[in-house]
Amino acid sequence: MVALTMLAILAALPVAIAQDPRQTCPASGCGVSPMGNEFFPFIQRVGYDPAATDPFTFRYYNKHEVVLGKPMSEWFRFSVAFWHTFMGTGSDPFGGPTKKWPWHDPALTPMQKAEAAMRANFELIDKLGVDFWCFHDRDIAPGGATLAESNANLDKIVALAEKLQKQTGTRPLWGTAQLFAEPWYMHGASTSPQAEVFARAAAQAKKAMDVTHKLGGLNFVFWGGREGYTSLLNTDMGLELKHLAAFLKMAVDYKAKIGFNGTLLIEPKPKEPSIHQYDWDAATSIGFLRAHNLSDSFAINVECNHATLSGHSCVHELETSRLAGMLGSVDANTGDLLTGWDTDQFLTDPRDASRIMRVIIANGGLAPGGFNFDAKLRRESVDVEDIVIAHIAGMDALARGLRSAAKIIEDGRLDALKAGRYASFQTGIGADIEAGKVGWSELEAWVLKQNANPAHVSAKLEHFERLEEAFI
Amino acid sequence: MVALTMLAILAALPVAIAQDPRQTCPASGCGVSPMGNEFFPFIQRVGYDPAATDPFTFRYYNKHEVVLGKPMSEWFRFSVAFWHTFMGTGSDPFGGPTKKWPWHDPALTPMQKAEAAMRANFELIDKLGVDFWCFHDRDIAPGGATLAESNANLDKIVALAEKLQKQTGTRPLWGTAQLFAEPWYMHGASTSPQAEVFARAAAQAKKAMDVTHKLGGLNFVFWGGREGYTSLLNTDMGLELKHLAAFLKMAVDYKAKIGFNGTLLIEPKPKEPSIHQYDWDAATSIGFLRAHNLSDSFAINVECNHATLSGHSCVHELETSRLAGMLGSVDANTGDLLTGWDTDQFLTDPRDASRIMRVIIANGGLAPGGFNFDAKLRRESVDVEDIVIAHIAGMDALARGLRSAAKIIEDGRLDALKAGRYASFQTGIGADIEAGKVGWSELEAWVLKQNANPAHVSAKLEHFERLEEAFI
Amino acid sequence: MVALTMLAILAALPVAIAQDPRQTCPASGCGVSPMGNEFFPFIQRVGYDPAATDPFTFRYYNKHEVVLGKPMSEWFRFSVAFWHTFMGTGSDPFGGPTKKWPWHDPALTPMQKAEAAMRANFELIDKLGVDFWCFHDRDIAPGGATLAESNANLDKIVALAEKLQKQTGTRPLWGTAQLFAEPWYMHGASTSPQAEVFARAAAQAKKAMDVTHKLGGLNFVFWGGREGYTSLLNTDMGLELKHLAAFLKMAVDYKAKIGFNGTLLIEPKPKEPSIHQYDWDAATSIGFLRAHNLSDSFAINVECNHATLSGHSCVHELETSRLAGMLGSVDANTGDLLTGWDTDQFLTDPRDASRIMRVIIANGGLAPGGFNFDAKLRRESVDVEDIVIAHIAGMDALARGLRSAAKIIEDGRLDALKAGRYASFQTGIGADIEAGKVGWSELEAWVLKQNANPAHVSAKLEHFERLEEAFI
Amino acid sequence: MVALTMLAILAALPVAIAQDPRQTCPASGCGVSPMGNEFFPFIQRVGYDPAATDPFTFRYYNKHEVVLGKPMSEWFRFSVAFWHTFMGTGSDPFGGPTKKWPWHDPALTPMQKAEAAMRANFELIDKLGVDFWCFHDRDIAPGGATLAESNANLDKIVALAEKLQKQTGTRPLWGTAQLFAEPWYMHGASTSPQAEVFARAAAQAKKAMDVTHKLGGLNFVFWGGREGYTSLLNTDMGLELKHLAAFLKMAVDYKAKIGFNGTLLIEPKPKEPSIHQYDWDAATSIGFLRAHNLSDSFAINVECNHATLSGHSCVHELETSRLAGMLGSVDANTGDLLTGWDTDQFLTDPRDASRIMRVIIANGGLAPGGFNFDAKLRRESVDVEDIVIAHIAGMDALARGLRSAAKIIEDGRLDALKAGRYASFQTGIGADIEAGKVGWSELEAWVLKQNANPAHVSAKLEHFERLEEAFI
Repeated sequence: MVALTMLAILAALPVAIAQDPRQTCPASGCGVSPMGNEFFPFIQRVGYDPAATDPFTFRYYNKHEVVLGKPMSEWFRFSVAFWHTFMGTGSDPFGGPTKKWPWHDPALTPMQKAEAAMRANFELIDKLGVDFWCFHDRDIAPGGATLAESNANLDKIVALAEKLQKQTGTRPLWGTAQLFAEPWYMHGASTSPQAEVFARAAAQAKKAMDVTHKLGGLNFVFWGGREGYTSLLNTDMGLELKHLAAFLKMAVDYKAKIGFNGTLLIEPKPKEPSIHQYDWDAATSIGFLRAHNLSDSFAINVECNHATLSGHSCVHELETSRLAGMLGSVDANTGDLLTGWDTDQFLTDPRDASRIMRVIIANGGLAPGGFNFDAKLRRESVDVEDIVIAHIAGMDALARGLRSAAKIIEDGRLDALKAGRYASFQTGIGADIEAGKVGWSELEAWVLKQNANPAHVSAKLEHFERLEEAFI
Repeated sequence: MVALTMLAILAALPVAIAQDPRQTCPASGCGVSPMGNEFFPFIQRVGYDPAATDPFTFRYYNKHEVVLGKPMSEWFRFSVAFWHTFMGTGSDPFGGPTKKWPWHDPALTPMQKAEAAMRANFELIDKLGVDFWCFHDRDIAPGGATLAESNANLDKIVALAEKLQKQTGTRPLWGTAQLFAEPWYMHGASTSPQAEVFARAAAQAKKAMDVTHKLGGLNFVFWGGREGYTSLLNTDMGLELKHLAAFLKMAVDYKAKIGFNGTLLIEPKPKEPSIHQYDWDAATSIGFLRAHNLSDSFAINVECNHATLSGHSCVHELETSRLAGMLGSVDANTGDLLTGWDTDQFLTDPRDASRIMRVIIANGGLAPGGFNFDAKLRRESVDVEDIVIAHIAGMDALARGLRSAAKIIEDGRLDALKAGRYASFQTGIGADIEAGKVGWSELEAWVLKQNANPAHVSAKLEHFERLEEAFI
Repeated sequence: MVALTMLAILAALPVAIAQDPRQTCPASGCGVSPMGNEFFPFIQRVGYDPAATDPFTFRYYNKHEVVLGKPMSEWFRFSVAFWHTFMGTGSDPFGGPTKKWPWHDPALTPMQKAEAAMRANFELIDKLGVDFWCFHDRDIAPGGATLAESNANLDKIVALAEKLQKQTGTRPLWGTAQLFAEPWYMHGASTSPQAEVFARAAAQAKKAMDVTHKLGGLNFVFWGGREGYTSLLNTDMGLELKHLAAFLKMAVDYKAKIGFNGTLLIEPKPKEPSIHQYDWDAATSIGFLRAHNLSDSFAINVECNHATLSGHSCVHELETSRLAGMLGSVDANTGDLLTGWDTDQFLTDPRDASRIMRVIIANGGLAPGGFNFDAKLRRESVDVEDIVIAHIAGMDALARGLRSAAKIIEDGRLDALKAGRYASFQTGIGADIEAGKVGWSELEAWVLKQNANPAHVSAKLEHFERLEEAFI
Repeated sequence: MVALTMLAILAALPVAIAQDPRQTCPASGCGVSPMGNEFFPFIQRVGYDPAATDPFTFRYYNKHEVVLGKPMSEWFRFSVAFWHTFMGTGSDPFGGPTKKWPWHDPALTPMQKAEAAMRANFELIDKLGVDFWCFHDRDIAPGGATLAESNANLDKIVALAEKLQKQTGTRPLWGTAQLFAEPWYMHGASTSPQAEVFARAAAQAKKAMDVTHKLGGLNFVFWGGREGYTSLLNTDMGLELKHLAAFLKMAVDYKAKIGFNGTLLIEPKPKEPSIHQYDWDAATSIGFLRAHNLSDSFAINVECNHATLSGHSCVHELETSRLAGMLGSVDANTGDLLTGWDTDQFLTDPRDASRIMRVIIANGGLAPGGFNFDAKLRRESVDVEDIVIAHIAGMDALARGLRSAAKIIEDGRLDALKAGRYASFQTGIGADIEAGKVGWSELEAWVLKQNANPAHVSAKLEHFERLEEAFI
């Protein structure tokens, strides 16, 4: 029995039902990619057609179309995540790899696989019309027996990436160091009880920042994969937090030393793999940075699935970061709220996308950050075409969100109603409160003089929801 | 300071922004309700206009429009829930009532309040164009000092309801007995350790079924509000489950005795108010009914927010019930998945609505059940108009869901792809398995003979999601 | 049929099984309470007997016994919470009151009820041997039609409390203002969109601080009951947070103005009643206080059930607060982790209690804070004796925890093993890191020179757990 | 820098603190294991000494001591789980293996590793004094390129296991087939959409049952690792459930065919790896078995961590199974309730253990089932001695639970109070209800005649908890 691909299944169906899934292109064609057809031969550059019904054409994302004063590409600054997209094997705690990607042909050596994956990355980026990519050091090049070997491997692949970047006119949205996979990071990296592990993490992060800088990366991310603890029985949390701050301080110093101008980003996550992770959510991370005088040097990279794992909505985490002036970038994904772990799905819900985009618009965009697709196929999606469909779906969902968010803003009613709820702070006792002119004593006097209970005013959330729904 | 209504807020806004929120009517007018304007004077019968932008006009729900062979009214069989809509006070564990509904004018006696609320119910039903309502016995008439007094109160209000039903051509989708609010039900009703409480519950349920029958109710619901436990330390779960089954058996007997032809429905819920409730979810309830030979006499009333509290999607609970041939009715609401309790919000998400409607269509509809809005305004939504807006939003969301579900079905690709995944069971060894012709030994022989590992086939969920999204 | 009390049930059982539940007293007797026997006639002052088997005698809590250099009373500084204990009605979202406490005899006027409840409070406190109590303003005296009336009611009850405090030698551990129950607080108090509500909250909090000061209260608590939001659609989170900070700043100013020396405490809670509450957890609250330069004026009141609702252990929240130098007080309770709301149960698990007490010991105790029993009987526990049993169980559980924590500390092995894990930071490269002598470049050089991967060291958590278990 | 073992850390500590962790033996010695000292040279057979303070001596588990009429060994029938103990690598979704077990020396071939692991298994079993072990087919022998190769590998290892079983007098508590790790099981095994996968699963399960039978295994387990779904968009749940039932029916047939007398067990789990798993919890599984006439042929294997993931307590799942007459066996572990995935920790909480054992005692024990330690070390516990300590801790915790459960039962008060709560069903109207003599009409007549509301009786849960706590 041979594998049934989607095309084969469709071919077997009655013609009336099985519409042709091939890519729809405008009259002028889809655009030929200069990156070739080594890994994704079934598509050309993805076009835009609001009326398309095939999975390989954008219905909402129109790269150069201006919305609220900016081209869509600039609102999003989309990035492909190297790890999930090219290195995800499909293994999980209950089973081994399921993906059989052509760039990981078993006949290749580790370095040949790394080179093939990098070529696949730029072929995909070019065909999707994306301008950025993100990576961990150990994603793009295999680790060696020693740090020196690992660094040498990395340098070789970075040279290839540089060449391919030039061909495509792209650059890293951000780079980062993978400080959680090797066994010596099992107790943490900068928060390990072993000083030599702290040192190793520092050395690895230094090199990762070096290569991010070399590749023209715009940001550098810290996701504290195992910076946390399983139990306080065997953990000195105070000392570990002190070490975490010291490590971040060193990053600030090193960045200055090498003249790297990228933004440093903290990516919060509450749990997994550590039972408790120190960068729990945006508020915790911002508070930690402030306590250590690091808040001027860092911003927050909000990941939507991490948000919901921490009990917040993605929009809450975005807004918390925005209000602190620290909204740096977004890892665009979503989770299954009925599970308790990170599923890193592509975000496709139209309403969620609209809400996210309203915060991004309020922030004036994300630059130098952007939207990185920290999202993966389900384990049992194993066709190369699934990668392409998933990215198109993710880009289109956010584009649909941008369009609906813009319409809500242009309509104006929702924002006007919201502002109206707070109007009483613009005059009278409200204005005095805002101006800091009154304290508890003066307010008591005012209340006693009024001698009446406050007015009974509806919050009208159902009305707000109906206003919003009209544009989703 | 006086209360600011939405109209006042809008009046204070620049004209260009503050569009008139008044009801949009077609040229022929909205239709005057024969039920008058006692409680909802700001609206006439709600019309349908796909292009409307006001909150008081349906954009998707067009009562008599035929979709997939049935009028929308028949697909939905919408019902207003008396308790949340007219009796919800807004009190919660941290604060008292917030609603100041005109039908609960403090100057009225309890029975006058009950009469006013009943008039409000039918005025709302008529203006929304809904054909059904649902009630608990103690919602519609106040309890008295004794059961006899309570029954007398109930009879008076039922007489009024009968009259108003005739005027509006409506009837109860279902009735039920409220067996959880009185202090004597604190340990459960049919599962109370006190025999006299079992007896009281039986007596109250009998009367509730009597009046449901008298009013022409189509179903009778059991929601086991406190049928469950806090801790097994002080609970004999085996005995309590035996009593629960005995109680339901009595319901079957009594139904036959009085000639009530309505369906008996179990409404599962996992937690709250009991820490553990016996009717945890659809599978548990169906299993319980089967174990006690009651499954032929009952069906399931799925409540979406209860579904998610049990860790399932609403669609899972619907499908589980449908596959058992026991999908009886739906309590249409939704919850906030980031909280751990029942928020009973109006369901407004377009994608959820579409998924729900696909199961309903597969079930051929719900009759004699329907969609009951077991949903409430947020505590801080306190304008009478909020009730109307919320119901319109809920009806429209499901109607949008029906329209998109119908389009997906008519398009056919999604269902064809799904069926294609299982095609191998139609021939060869798959057909032998389906026919029960082979066992483990024969299958081992077949596998050893094949001498190959199974084909590697993608589940293509991202493709399915993109296919779906095009119609949402 | 008459109610069966526990005594009656036991009387009906075989003698051999039904051991006498009456209070066990030492030879010298239990001690007669000068507060009389108006509400708790079945007990005298509770004694201590490690071998007791009755529910009315402490087996672990021996008030004046010195453990690790302090009497147990000083380690705990136990407080009775007025609201749950005397004002809890048993009502929940699905049913009305179940408690029929004698101090709330329906024949009494509201003010007479308040006086009776206050007498009951001091009778209980005295019999338990507790030195503190906690209250909200609206718990102890009924609200009036206006603030002026409410204040007058409060003054009368405070005068009674003062008299009873003198008789018992007790004082408030803390007071607070109830800013969440009245309908005008439905959108928040200091974070309400209505300026007049902010003013009302300020006026009420001022009076609450006045009476706390008058009664010799040691702390003043802010639990932001409705300081949060349901949805960002209709919420200006930035403005609301600014108002919250302004309100707290006014508290600091007013405290200075009246010479109140008590500690101001923030009590975090993540959800309920608001879907999202601003004081989410200890880290969020501490971060907020620091961002607004308020951290020197406030400490944290950790509630264990709030901790688990936020996804943390109680111990995590205590340790987070302790490390920030802001561990102020504890609301001693626990939740059911399988539910999603605050159950406020009495903490009785021996292992949890031991872990909590190790943090308290590390903090050198809690003074001027203490352990307040913010815990309630289950809704269906309705005997007056249940109140007494629950408090004895709660005090004894923590006392058992103190005894086991002290043994673990005295044994020394667990702490030594924990310290040993971090030993590498005391010499060599570890010491250089601690001293800030090295940065990423130096660490890279060190790692490259070592040319070896870090040592593979076990975290030995199972061994730590077995060491701990021996003392539980 | 070299690895610091616990012994080395202790050696570096002051003598007074660092008590010698070496195994304590009674005067007669610990007993020399005939299985040698190849993998666990630091211990002899584990002894029992209630006063021991070292981690390698039981303080509660005294194998031959009779409690409530049975030796402890028979109450527990402890089993070592081969997979976690010998095959767990420590890899997780964020990092690779951490364990460097001597039986997996990289110099060995896969079959040599399998043999070494099997020797380690029996050395551990013998030293712990355990009589049983559990395994998946693919744990004990590596899979080959084809099923025939896999079967050949399995046969070789089974021959070794048989020999070692004879030396130790042990046997499998149960065997099972691992139907979730290979890529072809990614969509499920018996519920895969591919007929050839169903066939492969059947062939593999047949062989696993063959070898379980050959080894004298007492039970055969079905854990439906991927029998479930990610989304109903691409899933035909009805067909998949039908296939699941067909597969189980084949198991019953095959068992009869080969004369295997072991019990067939279903092990429920709600989520992970599938988002939704069909064997959600005990009630769902029992209901499914009943619906397919399989309940006489199967029992339930309750795993405690699976219980809590499904929102139930472990005790609830045990009691649900017991009441259905289907409590077959227990996977003894526990989870971290603040996380959302299976952590499979060793259960060490004394109160949980006591509650579990009360159900086991009510069930009269578990034979032919038992307690299988489906538990693993934390990823960062990497010393061989940690395996031994964890098992001793787990066995001792349950033994402590048995001792406290027995005391509570012998004391009798808790059970008497519980029975007393239900006494009203033994006389009068209660007895009539029990006897089925009355229906709703008769009960209404009885209530109306009584003309009184039910008595107000406390559930006294706090009193039950205090009674229990005295024995924990």
